[in-house]
Amino acid sequence: MIIIGEKINSSRRQIAEAIASGNREYIQNEAIVQSDAGADYIDVNAAAFMEKEAEYLRWIIEAVQEVIELPLCIDSPDPKVIGKVISLVKKPPMINSITLESSRLDGILPFVLDYRATVIGLCQTGNRMGKSAAEKVEIAGRLIEKVTSTGIGINTLFIDPLVFPVGADSNSACATLDAIEEIMKHYQGVHTVCGLTNVSHGLPNRKLVNRTFLAEAVARGLDAAILDPSDKQLLGTLRAALMLMGKDEYCMGYIKAFRKGLLA
Amino acid sequence: MIIIGEKINSSRRQIAEAIASGNREYIQNEAIVQSDAGADYIDVNAAAFMEKEAEYLRWIIEAVQEVIELPLCIDSPDPKVIGKVISLVKKPPMINSITLESSRLDGILPFVLDYRATVIGLCQTGNRMGKSAAEKVEIAGRLIEKVTSTGIGINTLFIDPLVFPVGADSNSACATLDAIEEIMKHYQGVHTVCGLTNVSHGLPNRKLVNRTFLAEAVARGLDAAILDPSDKQLLGTLRAALMLMGKDEYCMGYIKAFRKGLLA
Repeated sequence: MIIIGEKINSSRRQIAEAIASGNREYIQNEAIVQSDAGADYIDVNAAAFMEKEAEYLRWIIEAVQEVIELPLCIDSPDPKVIGKVISLVKKPPMINSITLESSRLDGILPFVLDYRATVIGLCQTGNRMGKSAAEKVEIAGRLIEKVTSTGIGINTLFIDPLVFPVGADSNSACATLDAIEEIMKHYQGVHTVCGLTNVSHGLPNRKLVNRTFLAEAVARGLDAAILDPSDKQLLGTLRAALMLMGKDEYCMGYIKAFRKGLLA
Repeated sequence: MIIIGEKINSSRRQIAEAIASGNREYIQNEAIVQSDAGADYIDVNAAAFMEKEAEYLRWIIEAVQEVIELPLCIDSPDPKVIGKVISLVKKPPMINSITLESSRLDGILPFVLDYRATVIGLCQTGNRMGKSAAEKVEIAGRLIEKVTSTGIGINTLFIDPLVFPVGADSNSACATLDAIEEIMKHYQGVHTVCGLTNVSHGLPNRKLVNRTFLAEAVARGLDAAILDPSDKQLLGTLRAALMLMGKDEYCMGYIKAFRKGLLA
């Protein structure tokens, strides 16, 4: 399971404030906390700042790389922004994200090649998001074809089948779970990745819904997630879910995380 | 999802004491608590008392039926004991359980017919418990054939694929999950049911492991469980898991349970 630490995102108020005020230490601490909790990549996002996005993203990348060793997940929809910052990374990064939209595809795939990056592909065309399982799987197939036709390995691609609020459509989460299983069975070597928080929008006890969704997604084959690794209840659920799926030999990952106080 | 309340089981010390001392109120309260928390059946078990099993089970059944309306799940491996108590039930019961062992099969199936009962079938022959997913599915197929050949409908049968400690074999829980999916896909109309506690034997934070296993099993198709419905964290996970699988229209089950304070 590949964990992408989601916390350094300019859509979060505290992060936007830290960026705007140049509070380097706050950003660095968010990186350290996620690294200590077991993240594999640290997502970095300044998209809320519009025309200052590249400048701020550059500042974040430098700040974060001063304090942790992990690779970064460069989170921007804009190939120009990615082009302005990607040369700063010290390790092969992940890029978040492409869609079937050709400006994003053609703009971003060269960076994936040049920087030996991995890349998240959203199940979304220019004007349409995949809602049913069949739509998600169909778009995933086209993404895989586009990416691999450029010579990029299928195992470089992390398909995000997208998650919509179950409170607005009772079948939306199930569609995502079905798509995960189908994609993982039919496209050997590809990864699937999800964000979690959207699923619980509008419901009470959102964190319960989010972590239960994560356990179900792991049971259907999900092998990467964008989440807050310092959420101990969430990480407890994740570690237990992986162990129960036979992905934690001798349960050592679970037991070690428990001993370190990382689970709740 | 069919919930079988597990608490009135003579393997629990408090229950054994209540039975031995004739503490009717304690037993009745355990029934009421589980009924209020949303159980569909109340399991009743006095198997720890050996030659007094039938006498005590009769006492439990009478005590429980005084205070709740729910059907009972008569939990005994012994056809003779079941024969001595089953005429007391006021509603069509569940019987827990048969195996492929012919004395249990031939002794219990007539009660299923006569009392319009449902029945739990363990993935176990006389001398062998199904360990791999393939073994579980193979035994399930033979159970289904035996049961339906007597004229009993397949939807009367709840297959328990058995759960073994993941701490002793990293692949044991995954085998159960795979078997659930396979059985539910290949035998339309049959149910699957699980106990949960065995899976976490020997591990820290057992309840976390148990409820995560439940979420994963629901994601793979499980439609019944033997559990403590008054465990709010467990029920919260179950309600969320069902909702996310599209089995809770408009999320009303989840939201109502939340409002009643049944989730944590």
